Amino acid sequence: MAEGRAFWLGGVQIPSTRGAVGHSDADVLIHAICDALLGALALGDIGQHFPNTDAAYKDIDSKILLVMTWEMIKVRGYRVVNIDSTVTLEAPKIMKYAPAMRETMARSLEIAVEDISIKATTTEQMGFVGRGEGIVAYAVVLLERI
Amino acid sequence: MAEGRAFWLGGVQIPSTRGAVGHSDADVLIHAICDALLGALALGDIGQHFPNTDAAYKDIDSKILLVMTWEMIKVRGYRVVNIDSTVTLEAPKIMKYAPAMRETMARSLEIAVEDISIKATTTEQMGFVGRGEGIVAYAVVLLERI
Amino acid sequence: MAEGRAFWLGGVQIPSTRGAVGHSDADVLIHAICDALLGALALGDIGQHFPNTDAAYKDIDSKILLVMTWEMIKVRGYRVVNIDSTVTLEAPKIMKYAPAMRETMARSLEIAVEDISIKATTTEQMGFVGRGEGIVAYAVVLLERI
Repeated sequence: MAEGRAFWLGGVQIPSTRGAVGHSDADVLIHAICDALLGALALGDIGQHFPNTDAAYKDIDSKILLVMTWEMIKVRGYRVVNIDSTVTLEAPKIMKYAPAMRETMARSLEIAVEDISIKATTTEQMGFVGRGEGIVAYAVVLLERI
Repeated sequence: MAEGRAFWLGGVQIPSTRGAVGHSDADVLIHAICDALLGALALGDIGQHFPNTDAAYKDIDSKILLVMTWEMIKVRGYRVVNIDSTVTLEAPKIMKYAPAMRETMARSLEIAVEDISIKATTTEQMGFVGRGEGIVAYAVVLLERI
Repeated sequence: MAEGRAFWLGGVQIPSTRGAVGHSDADVLIHAICDALLGALALGDIGQHFPNTDAAYKDIDSKILLVMTWEMIKVRGYRVVNIDSTVTLEAPKIMKYAPAMRETMARSLEIAVEDISIKATTTEQMGFVGRGEGIVAYAVVLLERI
């Protein structure tokens, strides 16, 4: 997290004086969900599909990566049963933006808002997350073969 | 973790000179399982349902939160297939209390002891968990619509 | 991670001047997968089955632990639907070894290579993983009763 960066999370820009630093828009929640989707079908990871050394992905809107990832799942004949995710960060408070994030990501994934979950927690001021240096996102997805 | 706090984990008080600090009894394992249950049905997170700014939850026994969470799942027509969890901490050793924790939580959740798992690990003295400053719990649940 | 240790990951030795330190070969990816398998059937954790205080497991090849764990699952009448895993480390780059790791572990688990996934990520130089002091692995497994 750095001063003066836009803070993108779950496809939504969250008001904040600080935002995550990265090659793309640094939307760690979308990145975690992309990785969980890829992992469920053993398709590699986000770093292989969208390398942060590739100029094509410089400052890219991570929603584009989410749609591209979903296409890889869809063409293989799977549907999303549900997605759960947890964002670990000290500040800002994000849960009031959860409905907007869920709607935005559900649209990219062609699923119902009820099928995607976002949760937030802190690390009680401990570690790099607790010091506000960075944020960590976890995601788990359940897919079903159609 | 702080000196002189009771150490509640998985609904059981574990003998320890140090315990977790929090608004409730700070039972991070039950909190992780509550969050996993809520997340599976996209019902928000434990911070939304049981805010740590609400005096009603001050020093509350987290088993009460677990029962309240399970009620939210049950009324929606789901059953727990299984729950797995991992507690990351340096000390004390907790696995001898795993049977008691599993029995206690299984009773709250109206499931068999065989359907709830607890595992422990350390971070090999690295990071805030390794320095004994805090503990972290992870949980994953599988629900089935009845 | 320490200088001069062999670096075993996913059952494969990865060229590196540094490797993970532990009682066994310190293959944290296999250990995470063993724990996920044990946890899915509530069979305890790797520390209970293969204690790091037992000379029998000193410097042991973790593939042996993986096979022993899989036997515990198999005799109970379950099959692996899929396994997903994430290794969090700063260096070295491991994804070019992912095919070899997946083949090696799939053979131990008697599953298809397509049913086991490995992903890698960093913590962007933050925390003990970011400083290269240690690595962390996560795994999730889906089992089905035969």
